Amino acid sequence: MKILIDTFGADEGSKVLVDGAVLALEKKEFTPVFVGDEKEIENYLGGRIKDYEIIHTKEYISNDEEPVRAIRRKKDSSLVLAYNKLKEEGYDGLLSAGSTGAILAGGIFISKRIDGIDRPSLAAPLPTTKGYTLLMDTGANMDCKPAYLEEFAIMGKVFLENVIHIDNPKIGLLNVGVESHKGNKLTKETYDLLENSNLNFVGNIEPRDLFTGEVNILLADGFAGNVAIKAAEGVISLFKSEIKNVFYKSAKNKLAALAIKNDLSKELGKYSSQNIGGVPLLGVKSYVYKAHGNSNDIAISNAILGLIDYISMDVISKIQGELND
Amino acid sequence: MKILIDTFGADEGSKVLVDGAVLALEKKEFTPVFVGDEKEIENYLGGRIKDYEIIHTKEYISNDEEPVRAIRRKKDSSLVLAYNKLKEEGYDGLLSAGSTGAILAGGIFISKRIDGIDRPSLAAPLPTTKGYTLLMDTGANMDCKPAYLEEFAIMGKVFLENVIHIDNPKIGLLNVGVESHKGNKLTKETYDLLENSNLNFVGNIEPRDLFTGEVNILLADGFAGNVAIKAAEGVISLFKSEIKNVFYKSAKNKLAALAIKNDLSKELGKYSSQNIGGVPLLGVKSYVYKAHGNSNDIAISNAILGLIDYISMDVISKIQGELND
Repeated sequence: MKILIDTFGADEGSKVLVDGAVLALEKKEFTPVFVGDEKEIENYLGGRIKDYEIIHTKEYISNDEEPVRAIRRKKDSSLVLAYNKLKEEGYDGLLSAGSTGAILAGGIFISKRIDGIDRPSLAAPLPTTKGYTLLMDTGANMDCKPAYLEEFAIMGKVFLENVIHIDNPKIGLLNVGVESHKGNKLTKETYDLLENSNLNFVGNIEPRDLFTGEVNILLADGFAGNVAIKAAEGVISLFKSEIKNVFYKSAKNKLAALAIKNDLSKELGKYSSQNIGGVPLLGVKSYVYKAHGNSNDIAISNAILGLIDYISMDVISKIQGELND
Repeated sequence: MKILIDTFGADEGSKVLVDGAVLALEKKEFTPVFVGDEKEIENYLGGRIKDYEIIHTKEYISNDEEPVRAIRRKKDSSLVLAYNKLKEEGYDGLLSAGSTGAILAGGIFISKRIDGIDRPSLAAPLPTTKGYTLLMDTGANMDCKPAYLEEFAIMGKVFLENVIHIDNPKIGLLNVGVESHKGNKLTKETYDLLENSNLNFVGNIEPRDLFTGEVNILLADGFAGNVAIKAAEGVISLFKSEIKNVFYKSAKNKLAALAIKNDLSKELGKYSSQNIGGVPLLGVKSYVYKAHGNSNDIAISNAILGLIDYISMDVISKIQGELND
């Protein structure tokens, strides 16, 4: 199996992507195909692995660029080269830690959408007290129609059933109240649509239950999903810094902090995105994973391993099958 | 000054509202007009104060009722009685900890909107690292147009300038990215509208900066505002329970916890809503404050004191003036 790895895009540079691939090779067999600066990649590899390919380029798409335009014009960027290579026989999947918008645009314009899918979506697993919840969408699709959210639910269901082995996953709708009449126009209409579908729809989920794992798939338009996840991230980092302040406040506190620090970072570390590493771009005709820009090598390794599972389970054909039913 | 106090609606019952009024009287002079069960109110008062009125009723509007219908039909409910009394000469303001929807509906249908205001809004002060940020809207208006958000900004500005004494408050737009092209249809159009207004608009604010106090007023449609605030609340309560688990995990941890507990609850307590107590319903022709359902007596007392300042500064005429400019 050949996995294309876009070596640009991570905040810490190409090294974490090269190191992540080497780490993943300790767990599973595959051939990494690095797309990026050959000299830099060889340098980071330092002869540690033998079976790999490099597609050389120094061009890349940054987070500040308008995604669709960049995908169309920057033919020699690492992401466009990788997406094009992915269409060739024998190249199975693509991992990138680059611009979310550009990854989405590449999926739509180079890989193309699965027939019957209007809007591909990045399915982000939120760590919860009971495993994780797939949040769809988290920012790829800002203005949504009820039918898009139903598509997200179908794609998420196939992914969970096949890759994570969760049967008939519970599906919830992110909303400001649990009652069916609560919410805005989109959530009210989506509620009706899902209630009359064959999906295992369990109703509205309030944002305060984002991390309680009540459902396996949580549906939201990309704006609301992104607001929820970023508000949560903001509070987490604020609380961590407040706790740190308390720890350093006095000699007495420093001593106490020493005693509980390990337990505390273990408990709070459960809510780290590094364990999951990456998220699938569902709804396009090729296997693409997006890693977080601030990934470390462990996150990249986990993302590659997740991508390999995703490819092995033939999820794309199964989504197509579910849509034809 | 006479302040109507709806004694139904708090999770803990009428006692917190009566006690809150007694507490507030220690700081400021006013006449409380309790609306609720006379016997219960007299009982809770226990002769502690002399100058007060009671409007007796046992009927109230619950959170589960459809607000507009309840306001129209339940003429003897505490909230409707209070709103009607508020129209009489000499009754200056109303505090309720009851249903947000019913308080809003009462404002619109009994007090009526200020001329030129399409959508009244509850202005919720979020505690931040630098004081607080007024979040508008937080759930009263689900589907918004750009013009509504501009109205929120104008009302919030007059409130802050007059009641909190912040000159030319900084106004931000809650959005998924800081760049002007980011967001959904509503935020993009609102960005353009605000940029071309006379308001002190400083741009988009990401949800992760909800509590960093970068702006004095943060604009959002009621759905997004509510999602942001509830996601944050959910994480706060999750983290608090995780920290508790760590504290009770072992004898060593319990000892350490004892040393830092006070400092920790002081730091994290900054983000408690009890300090603020209540939020003004801006955009209607009378002075109305909404307290949180889970308020204690201190929160109610703070809400009453806030309401008195709000009335004293003649904010309603000033909003009217700003709109006529």
